[in-house]
Amino acid sequence: MKEVAGYIAIGTNAYLSRQVKTIGLVVPWLFIAMWLAFGSWTAIAFLSGVALSLIAGYIGMNVAIRSNVRTASAAIVSMGSAFRTAFMGGSVTGLSVTALSLLALCTLRTTLGNLEPLIGFGFGGSLAALFAQIGGGIYTKSADIGADLVGKLEEEIPEDDPRNAAVIADLVGDNVGDCAGRGSDLFQSFSDDMITGMILGAIFSWKYGANGVVFPLVMQATGILGCIVGISLVREWKGRSPSASLFLGLFLASAVNAFGLYILSMTLLNDFTIFIAGLSGLIATLIAVLVSEYYTGLGNRPIRRMAEISQGGAAINIITGFSFGLQSSILPILAVVAAIIISFVISGGSLYAIVVANIGTDLLSAFIMSSDAYGPIADNAEGIARMSGVSAEASASLQKLDAVGNTMKASTKAFAMASGTLTAFVTFLTYFSTAGIPTLAVSVPFALAALYLGVALPYLFSSLTIGATANGALRMVYEVRRQFREMVGLREGKTTPDYARCVDIAAANALKEMVIPGILAFSAPVVMGVLFGPEELGTMLVGAAASAALLGFFFNNVGAAFDNAKKLVETGLYGDRGSIAYKASVVGDTVGDPLKDVAGPSLLIFMKLVGMTALLILRLLH
Amino acid sequence: MKEVAGYIAIGTNAYLSRQVKTIGLVVPWLFIAMWLAFGSWTAIAFLSGVALSLIAGYIGMNVAIRSNVRTASAAIVSMGSAFRTAFMGGSVTGLSVTALSLLALCTLRTTLGNLEPLIGFGFGGSLAALFAQIGGGIYTKSADIGADLVGKLEEEIPEDDPRNAAVIADLVGDNVGDCAGRGSDLFQSFSDDMITGMILGAIFSWKYGANGVVFPLVMQATGILGCIVGISLVREWKGRSPSASLFLGLFLASAVNAFGLYILSMTLLNDFTIFIAGLSGLIATLIAVLVSEYYTGLGNRPIRRMAEISQGGAAINIITGFSFGLQSSILPILAVVAAIIISFVISGGSLYAIVVANIGTDLLSAFIMSSDAYGPIADNAEGIARMSGVSAEASASLQKLDAVGNTMKASTKAFAMASGTLTAFVTFLTYFSTAGIPTLAVSVPFALAALYLGVALPYLFSSLTIGATANGALRMVYEVRRQFREMVGLREGKTTPDYARCVDIAAANALKEMVIPGILAFSAPVVMGVLFGPEELGTMLVGAAASAALLGFFFNNVGAAFDNAKKLVETGLYGDRGSIAYKASVVGDTVGDPLKDVAGPSLLIFMKLVGMTALLILRLLH
Repeated sequence: MKEVAGYIAIGTNAYLSRQVKTIGLVVPWLFIAMWLAFGSWTAIAFLSGVALSLIAGYIGMNVAIRSNVRTASAAIVSMGSAFRTAFMGGSVTGLSVTALSLLALCTLRTTLGNLEPLIGFGFGGSLAALFAQIGGGIYTKSADIGADLVGKLEEEIPEDDPRNAAVIADLVGDNVGDCAGRGSDLFQSFSDDMITGMILGAIFSWKYGANGVVFPLVMQATGILGCIVGISLVREWKGRSPSASLFLGLFLASAVNAFGLYILSMTLLNDFTIFIAGLSGLIATLIAVLVSEYYTGLGNRPIRRMAEISQGGAAINIITGFSFGLQSSILPILAVVAAIIISFVISGGSLYAIVVANIGTDLLSAFIMSSDAYGPIADNAEGIARMSGVSAEASASLQKLDAVGNTMKASTKAFAMASGTLTAFVTFLTYFSTAGIPTLAVSVPFALAALYLGVALPYLFSSLTIGATANGALRMVYEVRRQFREMVGLREGKTTPDYARCVDIAAANALKEMVIPGILAFSAPVVMGVLFGPEELGTMLVGAAASAALLGFFFNNVGAAFDNAKKLVETGLYGDRGSIAYKASVVGDTVGDPLKDVAGPSLLIFMKLVGMTALLILRLLH
Repeated sequence: MKEVAGYIAIGTNAYLSRQVKTIGLVVPWLFIAMWLAFGSWTAIAFLSGVALSLIAGYIGMNVAIRSNVRTASAAIVSMGSAFRTAFMGGSVTGLSVTALSLLALCTLRTTLGNLEPLIGFGFGGSLAALFAQIGGGIYTKSADIGADLVGKLEEEIPEDDPRNAAVIADLVGDNVGDCAGRGSDLFQSFSDDMITGMILGAIFSWKYGANGVVFPLVMQATGILGCIVGISLVREWKGRSPSASLFLGLFLASAVNAFGLYILSMTLLNDFTIFIAGLSGLIATLIAVLVSEYYTGLGNRPIRRMAEISQGGAAINIITGFSFGLQSSILPILAVVAAIIISFVISGGSLYAIVVANIGTDLLSAFIMSSDAYGPIADNAEGIARMSGVSAEASASLQKLDAVGNTMKASTKAFAMASGTLTAFVTFLTYFSTAGIPTLAVSVPFALAALYLGVALPYLFSSLTIGATANGALRMVYEVRRQFREMVGLREGKTTPDYARCVDIAAANALKEMVIPGILAFSAPVVMGVLFGPEELGTMLVGAAASAALLGFFFNNVGAAFDNAKKLVETGLYGDRGSIAYKASVVGDTVGDPLKDVAGPSLLIFMKLVGMTALLILRLLH
């Protein structure tokens, strides 16, 4: 076990340090540009944003590569023990990342005289998160798809088989893509919401005084406390599945948070409508989680239908999955829009209420991040166990825990998308309000034309990230094939494949391919703003955010649905591993991979980054 | 041949008359509602719109089921003769549908005192087109996919094999989906553009007098003449492929049209900027056609890459196709947006110039419609030839002509999407201008929230149409399997399958499934407008149109790309029909089918219908 875990740790660390170096090629130039354009404080805040976002990812990844081997060995004792170990590992990430964000913003708020440089911090955090997510996503899915295409389809060896040269790259990928990427993302979302919250809080100081500025910070702090209560409940309860215990913890955390929010609203702001606003945000995220659970849960109609229809082959499985996936975007968007409208109307037309609703969507962040970080730990533990040949019983426990991780992953992505959609909405309300643009002209076509371009942006962005994954996977396929062909005794398990070579290929590809989409995301708003002015930039922003939200929910849910439909077919319902249904479900799963783990999560960061960029350059456009 | 053609004709006519009956269940209620709400003239115009749109489709379908058998027998003489026969058949449709629209609008314009009832005509035409396209699309692709899944994958018999019970339903589908559906669609687009053109022309009568109102009609008439010149060139030229001759005709028609437009602009309106505006629309459609040709053409990088990568299996083929497809939406949208901005800026800020740009996108309609109607004629002819066992040489000619039809189909869809995108844009400029809404408030969240819902609408709509196709295909699979199982001697070709049963299943499914998406498309704007008012309705409209345009280009291009990647693999580049690459490309092709032939074309009509509905109910919202 230690040997395998060692390979993973080396590969993960090597990738992250190369990633930092690559990001380091872009950051100094931006730092100088920001210093010149906005002054020293914004530039310094930007640099702290970049650094802390990367550190947040690093924490998540580091905890994961330590907890994976502990979880694998805990599985020898019992499934409950393994579950607890993995989830506690996840919660270290969840709590430390949110606490880090809170700490950083409190410090900056105290150090800095005004709030403006905070936008630099948000921009830096978003930018680093974007690179980490795109790079990590491309890495993990190139390795995963490459390993599966040769391993499962050509050589017909099981998943995580030590003879597959790409298997370590795949396990490394779980850490750099899921842990490091999501850690940075959550850090960014959590921070951005406080930043826009404080900016609008300052605008509303006539109503709430200084409390309005502090409220977002206090609210997030309460959220972390509520999540700690929820986290403490997560363990193996008698007769209950791990995922039931996770949902129980989630609902308890929600209840505690709702209570805390009520107390805060009444004491700090003395405004009951603020409580309702925050609650509506919290409920919108829960709705998004439940909808995603419906569309991707093993026992529900969509997955059962997809598994059944897989008997007709891969194509009809994919078509059916698409039909469900496209639908699955609708309700979460409705829930988010409803939260916005309810907050605004009940507060008698206050933008501040929408901001509070937005922070309401973050209240469960620490819990959600813990469940999310749990996933790759369980996944890695299962891989380590298989490769080091533990007992069948321990292996079966870990397989179950891995499946729970998959379900939670879909839920956490839905949560993050709902939260990010509201964040983006608040960002452009902040933008229009800061820019002093109360209305958009529609008697001339400029603003609407810019909106079309905005809707188009996420298509280009997704195309780049998905294409990069396909390129990387193909390179991986060629390498794994080559090793099987050239290395004598590999197929018989008599020799060890060259894992390092695959790790290196995945890393080189990911780092090369992450640059263009990364640059696109922050340069598009700059170009638009400079060429056509703040009004057109604003509508482009709205179009991009709306389009990214819909595509994002679609990609995340359809990918998770394919994954779970495969899991259902694997139970043998429609034949064994040679059946049409099984092969069809594997194809669906692979198609879904880059959608749910590269394009979807990257779109989430993308839509927040374009907003932050717009806010940042606004000062230059006047 | 006559026997097979007879089966097709019976199936086609039976479906169309059932479709008319189904549409007849909705139309009378709307007629009464419109009479009560808007008065007799609007209601009558609505009814004429429905009737003429269905007649346009009927013409296309009727010409096709007569030309298909002639083309098949002409192929015995020579490929050139078959090409000419099929294209002349197509041009009957192209010319008569455009002429019908022109005639109807001239008549209505003369008969009616004011222009308002014309919106009823546009709404009726759109509504009928939508039902025809959704119903026809679901029909054709259920039959096609169902036939392929059992025929090619399970029984391993060739395409259009007479032992396959779904084969007649598949051939009928080509007529009801591609001919009848596209005929109605084109009729609608052609008509809608003249209607919005005349309405805005009336607003601009201070500048151009009565000529401004007549100009759209005259411009369309000139367009038809220009296309006749282009059509007359289409035949087999020595040493040139049929598709080269088609592109030659297209470019000649464009040149003649540009010249005609110049003459008209200078004589009728004496305004050179109007010529530039119209030309920019014409060029935008040509760009869309060329981009789609790049992404879906057999010799170009995307298709070669997809064919090559198919060696890695179906999943990676689909992922790569998606990456290209998502990209392929960008340039056409840029071209359309550029045409809008150029027209507006060069004319010194005149909305009328945008209207002319929009009609500029229709100038090639008659030609494009002819090429489009050519496709199913060639496809049907090939099917008839195979089933009646003509010489290998004739069959090979028809196969080539069918492939040309596929390429043209992708181009015509790109043309129609570009034209429709501009139509939708003009519709909501007309809407905001008629509603007297010069600006939208963005300091309150309502308009932006409605925009999000608008962006979501096409996702729901596509989900319904794609899901319906999957359901229909599955029913077809069960039936074809049943016949192979239960009918003695069918597999050996000793008995004829029950074609009628499959025709019936496809029809019943399509008619049942077309109702909900159809109702959604016209009820969503009504509900939004009544509940939240004209401003929110307007932004929902913009969001829906932009989102539908992007999704539409994506679906159309990705489907055509999968189709042609399969054609490239079929040449044997990466192995025979048992190879991984071949099977992977077949899966891709099937996944693309409902995207390019159901969801994409339906979205096109959808985005125009929501606009027409909004224009129609605007009077009730004040």
